[in-house]
Amino acid sequence: MDNSVYGSTLQPFAGITTFMRQPATRELKDVDVAILGIPFDSATSYRSGTRFGPRKIRELSAMLWGSNQVLRVAPLDHLRVIDYGDVDVVPVDIHETFARTTATVKTILDAGATVISLGGDHSLALPLLRAHHAKFGKLAVVHFDSHGDMWDYDFVGYKYSHGTPFRRAVEEDLIDTDAYLQIGIRGSTSALDDYEMATNLGARIMTIRDAMAQGTEKIVETIRQTVGTRPIYISFDIDAVDPAYAPGTGTPEVGGFTSFQALEMVRGLAGLNSVGFDLVEVDPSFDHGDITSLLAANLVFEFLSLAALKKRAAQ
Amino acid sequence: MDNSVYGSTLQPFAGITTFMRQPATRELKDVDVAILGIPFDSATSYRSGTRFGPRKIRELSAMLWGSNQVLRVAPLDHLRVIDYGDVDVVPVDIHETFARTTATVKTILDAGATVISLGGDHSLALPLLRAHHAKFGKLAVVHFDSHGDMWDYDFVGYKYSHGTPFRRAVEEDLIDTDAYLQIGIRGSTSALDDYEMATNLGARIMTIRDAMAQGTEKIVETIRQTVGTRPIYISFDIDAVDPAYAPGTGTPEVGGFTSFQALEMVRGLAGLNSVGFDLVEVDPSFDHGDITSLLAANLVFEFLSLAALKKRAAQ
Amino acid sequence: MDNSVYGSTLQPFAGITTFMRQPATRELKDVDVAILGIPFDSATSYRSGTRFGPRKIRELSAMLWGSNQVLRVAPLDHLRVIDYGDVDVVPVDIHETFARTTATVKTILDAGATVISLGGDHSLALPLLRAHHAKFGKLAVVHFDSHGDMWDYDFVGYKYSHGTPFRRAVEEDLIDTDAYLQIGIRGSTSALDDYEMATNLGARIMTIRDAMAQGTEKIVETIRQTVGTRPIYISFDIDAVDPAYAPGTGTPEVGGFTSFQALEMVRGLAGLNSVGFDLVEVDPSFDHGDITSLLAANLVFEFLSLAALKKRAAQ
Amino acid sequence: MDNSVYGSTLQPFAGITTFMRQPATRELKDVDVAILGIPFDSATSYRSGTRFGPRKIRELSAMLWGSNQVLRVAPLDHLRVIDYGDVDVVPVDIHETFARTTATVKTILDAGATVISLGGDHSLALPLLRAHHAKFGKLAVVHFDSHGDMWDYDFVGYKYSHGTPFRRAVEEDLIDTDAYLQIGIRGSTSALDDYEMATNLGARIMTIRDAMAQGTEKIVETIRQTVGTRPIYISFDIDAVDPAYAPGTGTPEVGGFTSFQALEMVRGLAGLNSVGFDLVEVDPSFDHGDITSLLAANLVFEFLSLAALKKRAAQ
Amino acid sequence: MDNSVYGSTLQPFAGITTFMRQPATRELKDVDVAILGIPFDSATSYRSGTRFGPRKIRELSAMLWGSNQVLRVAPLDHLRVIDYGDVDVVPVDIHETFARTTATVKTILDAGATVISLGGDHSLALPLLRAHHAKFGKLAVVHFDSHGDMWDYDFVGYKYSHGTPFRRAVEEDLIDTDAYLQIGIRGSTSALDDYEMATNLGARIMTIRDAMAQGTEKIVETIRQTVGTRPIYISFDIDAVDPAYAPGTGTPEVGGFTSFQALEMVRGLAGLNSVGFDLVEVDPSFDHGDITSLLAANLVFEFLSLAALKKRAAQ
Amino acid sequence: MDNSVYGSTLQPFAGITTFMRQPATRELKDVDVAILGIPFDSATSYRSGTRFGPRKIRELSAMLWGSNQVLRVAPLDHLRVIDYGDVDVVPVDIHETFARTTATVKTILDAGATVISLGGDHSLALPLLRAHHAKFGKLAVVHFDSHGDMWDYDFVGYKYSHGTPFRRAVEEDLIDTDAYLQIGIRGSTSALDDYEMATNLGARIMTIRDAMAQGTEKIVETIRQTVGTRPIYISFDIDAVDPAYAPGTGTPEVGGFTSFQALEMVRGLAGLNSVGFDLVEVDPSFDHGDITSLLAANLVFEFLSLAALKKRAAQ
Repeated sequence: MDNSVYGSTLQPFAGITTFMRQPATRELKDVDVAILGIPFDSATSYRSGTRFGPRKIRELSAMLWGSNQVLRVAPLDHLRVIDYGDVDVVPVDIHETFARTTATVKTILDAGATVISLGGDHSLALPLLRAHHAKFGKLAVVHFDSHGDMWDYDFVGYKYSHGTPFRRAVEEDLIDTDAYLQIGIRGSTSALDDYEMATNLGARIMTIRDAMAQGTEKIVETIRQTVGTRPIYISFDIDAVDPAYAPGTGTPEVGGFTSFQALEMVRGLAGLNSVGFDLVEVDPSFDHGDITSLLAANLVFEFLSLAALKKRAAQ
Repeated sequence: MDNSVYGSTLQPFAGITTFMRQPATRELKDVDVAILGIPFDSATSYRSGTRFGPRKIRELSAMLWGSNQVLRVAPLDHLRVIDYGDVDVVPVDIHETFARTTATVKTILDAGATVISLGGDHSLALPLLRAHHAKFGKLAVVHFDSHGDMWDYDFVGYKYSHGTPFRRAVEEDLIDTDAYLQIGIRGSTSALDDYEMATNLGARIMTIRDAMAQGTEKIVETIRQTVGTRPIYISFDIDAVDPAYAPGTGTPEVGGFTSFQALEMVRGLAGLNSVGFDLVEVDPSFDHGDITSLLAANLVFEFLSLAALKKRAAQ
Repeated sequence: MDNSVYGSTLQPFAGITTFMRQPATRELKDVDVAILGIPFDSATSYRSGTRFGPRKIRELSAMLWGSNQVLRVAPLDHLRVIDYGDVDVVPVDIHETFARTTATVKTILDAGATVISLGGDHSLALPLLRAHHAKFGKLAVVHFDSHGDMWDYDFVGYKYSHGTPFRRAVEEDLIDTDAYLQIGIRGSTSALDDYEMATNLGARIMTIRDAMAQGTEKIVETIRQTVGTRPIYISFDIDAVDPAYAPGTGTPEVGGFTSFQALEMVRGLAGLNSVGFDLVEVDPSFDHGDITSLLAANLVFEFLSLAALKKRAAQ
Repeated sequence: MDNSVYGSTLQPFAGITTFMRQPATRELKDVDVAILGIPFDSATSYRSGTRFGPRKIRELSAMLWGSNQVLRVAPLDHLRVIDYGDVDVVPVDIHETFARTTATVKTILDAGATVISLGGDHSLALPLLRAHHAKFGKLAVVHFDSHGDMWDYDFVGYKYSHGTPFRRAVEEDLIDTDAYLQIGIRGSTSALDDYEMATNLGARIMTIRDAMAQGTEKIVETIRQTVGTRPIYISFDIDAVDPAYAPGTGTPEVGGFTSFQALEMVRGLAGLNSVGFDLVEVDPSFDHGDITSLLAANLVFEFLSLAALKKRAAQ
Repeated sequence: MDNSVYGSTLQPFAGITTFMRQPATRELKDVDVAILGIPFDSATSYRSGTRFGPRKIRELSAMLWGSNQVLRVAPLDHLRVIDYGDVDVVPVDIHETFARTTATVKTILDAGATVISLGGDHSLALPLLRAHHAKFGKLAVVHFDSHGDMWDYDFVGYKYSHGTPFRRAVEEDLIDTDAYLQIGIRGSTSALDDYEMATNLGARIMTIRDAMAQGTEKIVETIRQTVGTRPIYISFDIDAVDPAYAPGTGTPEVGGFTSFQALEMVRGLAGLNSVGFDLVEVDPSFDHGDITSLLAANLVFEFLSLAALKKRAAQ
Repeated sequence: MDNSVYGSTLQPFAGITTFMRQPATRELKDVDVAILGIPFDSATSYRSGTRFGPRKIRELSAMLWGSNQVLRVAPLDHLRVIDYGDVDVVPVDIHETFARTTATVKTILDAGATVISLGGDHSLALPLLRAHHAKFGKLAVVHFDSHGDMWDYDFVGYKYSHGTPFRRAVEEDLIDTDAYLQIGIRGSTSALDDYEMATNLGARIMTIRDAMAQGTEKIVETIRQTVGTRPIYISFDIDAVDPAYAPGTGTPEVGGFTSFQALEMVRGLAGLNSVGFDLVEVDPSFDHGDITSLLAANLVFEFLSLAALKKRAAQ
């Protein structure tokens, strides 16, 4: 396939911004990984604007040169990757948006490809988990975030928002609650027993204080022991990272991870049975110098590397 | 009433940011005008972020010194104004948001006060018109905008969005189509017969080219002749103004009015029977130096001046 | 052709950012217009950064809805448009960049398509004129700019920079000096006889003061009388427009056109024999709220409309 | 008290921005804590603009959900908090501003409430210490900062500026110099013996290098041992934190604390006899994505939590 | 004098930023014009930050190429210009700052040079007028502004601020009230009789509505007739210009002049007996793309051109 | 020498922005250190804009108060420092720019002064190394960076760009490959064997992971052992630091050093035989709150301190 129109032979400042210059197409034959944007931001409790996340992450992905020195793999050597474009979200209808998201993801999964989705707000984890559950059954979940997103509601009486997806997912039995970790949790909460509530629902919480005390190596070890060989869904809310490193997000929470720690933790998942990935809550309107989108693009590159290692190992 | 805590005796940089330092309260007795924020932005087709419009317009209103030299009136000498705070919008439910908006506005109107609402996106014109129609009957509408907002849908199959409120309002018979003017219309459209469609529905379109050719004085004259003594609802989408003067908006359209022209047109409505006002589509995320919010605050000040002149004339 | 992956059925905030959702391809068969980016900015005398112009103009083109109400044409109904991607510029070699630009443009022109190019700095007008001259012979040139770009050098001893292309083009006999107009010229100059020098070289200068005194209608009339039926190359340096309307540019010059005037002048060229177009000097690093790129996208839309009218007239 | 007009039942993006939605009032009966803004910035040696600090910290406080998970307390369950608005500062008269500040704070303290003040520049620490000294006698001071602010003058011959308050406070005998700690000190200084001078005046300096070498736990231990049961005034200059985490400040100093470290140190003061608090030098003009104001709001939330724990313990 | 270290032979992006590359020196022998910065911003009623105005205007002056095409003069061919640096202002003491300003300006005037001063806030007009009055006697004043700055006080009881300088100057009999024009006045005012008050004090007010109705040519004519051959002080508050063109200012006022109009009015003063100049209220913190500072630099270039024409005429 | 015109007695917000208020001059007699700007950015592979680096670093250097508390030295007490201004770069000719850079640096070195150069992009390291090699012979190089800059080309077939200088320098035998360290290397690379290639060429790579694992003290120890008493050239690419701390750069790479670590490493070089210094890749267009330039100015201050210690030791 000739990707030159996208700039595969050009410098990062030139060309059309598909993810890493891969072809924009909806043809799924022989595809290993499809990058999928879901520009939906109506379910946020503070800043909207994450609808521009997928577009901007694609743009910054032009700075990815292809070889992962830490994981020792050049993902595009092993994977056929496409940019599937965006889900046709409906800002005024979260239910329809969820339905279309689940349907689109199922289509891709059914064609045998892995989905890496770019949000959009975190409410999207629910339709993503639904689609992956349909394919893989109950999922171990490694969830990087500053918020547990296990509230019963953000908006009184409304079950779906960016603060509730993982509670809904547990209720819908999509998650294997023996292997559900939340990493980086912090900040003020609406109730004093928020963590207890989440724990009772089946989440294992590693607060940022736990994380800072342990260091990334030990966190990775805990994750690996917990998830074992289960199929794993990785959900990365960029606000897990400190606003100094990721200011461009909808509900920033101070006192978080550095970008180095974030990268190290994701790299630590190499060799596990990762089956799904999302990177959500990038809000370019509040970013500067594109540093948040650049970090997001690099985290997605780590996701791609995990997928490549998995495929290489399987061959 | 002691407004000192809001900063009524302070410089513009100090104090708590209610609109023009007026008291934040929901007590409506003896109130002439209630400023009402409606921070809803889920119905937009490009940039979200207008949910922060009301907050920022209030902040910039601290720069309003009180006396209108052109209209020769100091509104707060004649009107008891309160800041009613914001409608409890639900970003994921436009129907409920509309219902709450209409209900809140009705409550205020029923108490005998005039509402000046701060958006939020332009979809809100519909629930606002519903509430005003309930009180005043069919409304003449003076609609400043770059877009007619008379599409059948923005999102295929969805009747409510920020591109459709005036079509819905016509369909619901809220508007007196003998006196409905759209001023400043411009930009590319989805169909070549967009203007014809709007005209057929009852709108009288003054494109920006007409407006530039005529000048503001003649525009004002046309408005006055058209609306006569009818009860008038004024809806001002800040994107009527050129992005140079109002960059902070959701769907900017180049080639628009200057701020001077905008002010002159609103001032030109003095003496008419204005019964309702909205100022919508201010999106501070894309503003700079707060110039859009400052212009919006000044336009709201002109609205207040119109209301003051009307009350003074009635006494 | 299925453009859905680019977002042809999506809202402006979604999809992959080719120009107006048109297919990214280098296949030129049956193509009417090719959009071509040339992200070169090494020849600038003040701010670099226009290398990001093509990318950002493409992004903002998603806000173009398709129908031109002033010129009464929906360009994509008449033209098959593609996004050809970017020229492989070499920031450290202006000569090679020029050679590649001319070669690429010739390839497209030879395939029978019209080129609309997105800069990049204005030095690129020279290789663009070379390619168009090869196809069309000597060209009438309608050149919107605040600077005449007819210096002998910006950098002492260097013939090629963004201040010299039109002098070089005259020297290379690419321009029909009976029909070369510069419109919007202003600002301080390096020598008092700068205008005289340009006039002697064959340019007809309309300073911004002339332009403001005459108005756009009369300017258009002058252009039309001057160029007649000649093949016309239109070169639009965004700094012709005032920095209030187009802050995102490399060498802004205060006291310029409004966006409305810019649009009106380009529309005024309808019916003429336009054969080539460039829109240069958009520098997103210094823009805000994307207003400069939005204006540029709209000006390109006017170019497309001119091309569509020409094709429609020829049928 | 009905706080709904301030948005107590609304999402963070809605409502009028008092601190944490608490009532704006000057009624002090039964009040435990009064939040007080002091928007004075005339005493700064580099960037002015901190006059907008109080307003912006209030705005970001809407993101505080109420429960402190680390200190295990929901401050508003224990404290009656009001937003007292701002001191009527006089930018051209530092003496009068100091007098008004001291008077206002005394009024609040005399009514039995605790003051948490939001700056404004750090010169304000002097009138704040004066008022607290009048109530509590000599104060232990925990002073987080990158600068010691113990110069004899910033402006030759002028005793009052943002570089001198703590020297003046020592000279006025307001501080218990057996218990005065400066934490985070760094950066170039005007004299090589600056630290010696400060030490001679009674300050105990923990430079950032000491702090980084020790870690926050040991710093906290040192603080606790030093201050014991004395009444403590906590002064937090946001520039103690690194500009990566707190760019929005008047005299940023590179090489500072992370936001996580800042939070941990303040939390470490739980159980001590804190009697006064200030958070100063937030300059929103140089912030981005509001990350500095968000951090400031969170630090104030920790102050509130300390106050709540103290009251709970006293009951 | 060798100015190469300042970049006189370099492109605008290179070199040390004195005004137009002229030598930084305090040697006044044979100097025609001294550029003087006065970075004082403590007397402002809204945004501080104009202390960075002089620095940024100098930076943008690197874009001035030397020849004024409208006035047909290359100022540096006729004038020996130096950059005198900045007055040593004291942010906490307006009286001392005024004294130092007056003294510095007197020193320069006494050496036979003309002063062009760069603010800083508009309170500085008073010490500037004092110094010029000492040299030239009562002054005709051409005052471009959106505010008359003739209040008795901004801060109750304080005579000196950026809202009062011209009242003080009239009271001190520095201005010839037969020849004092205010041009561009607009916006809300604190009292309905503000204009009457100013008129009674001797100012002739041309509101922005008068100005827009008349056009710049007629304004210029009025100015010329009014001032005749009197010695003229020109005071240009950048907020006379609309915030679209000059967002970077302390108290922006919507509905103002375009940059083209501003330039035309200043150029219209050619041939008059201008003896002093200030350009104030540029606040780079709220600018974008440096467009305000660029406009300011161009206006100062027009001032220089006026001075050059005067000297040429005198020879 | 009287530096008052540059503001040596003024606050940081005032005065003309030479580096640390030192005299702008090209007179080299008795000079110890010359600060030299090289505003060239045509050799960058992503963002241009570093041409404004020297100017902005100078501006922020006004915040440096003179005494280095960690290294216990006030550099200006020991060194006569001048600001030599900028090299007359030619954006369209990298060869000529290199020649002029080398020539200018040689002139300064030959006069017996040390050069601290401010970039500009990293391609400049090559002409800088050439000039230093001519004076000092083969150089030990301590190279802080996220990228090794040892590619054979960025632009196919072009030997000179910001990704190649150190390969060229090795090829030209300018570097002592027994003492060439790269510190902070990270990010995706174009080939999997990039590090191997660099190692084979003679570089000793400390990746960011090595660095984070070891800590700055151990890094410093390694450097000291490696370079010994050799003449050392220190090249600091600001992108060695994480984008959170240094967003204003051309090719940011996430997961890097903190500003504290950066300062500590440079300070660790005290006592070594440093003979040359550059600080490159500061791109103010993408900075915010000037934090990157402030960090750069502080790093240059550490360079100055190293030079002062060296001179003091030699006396």
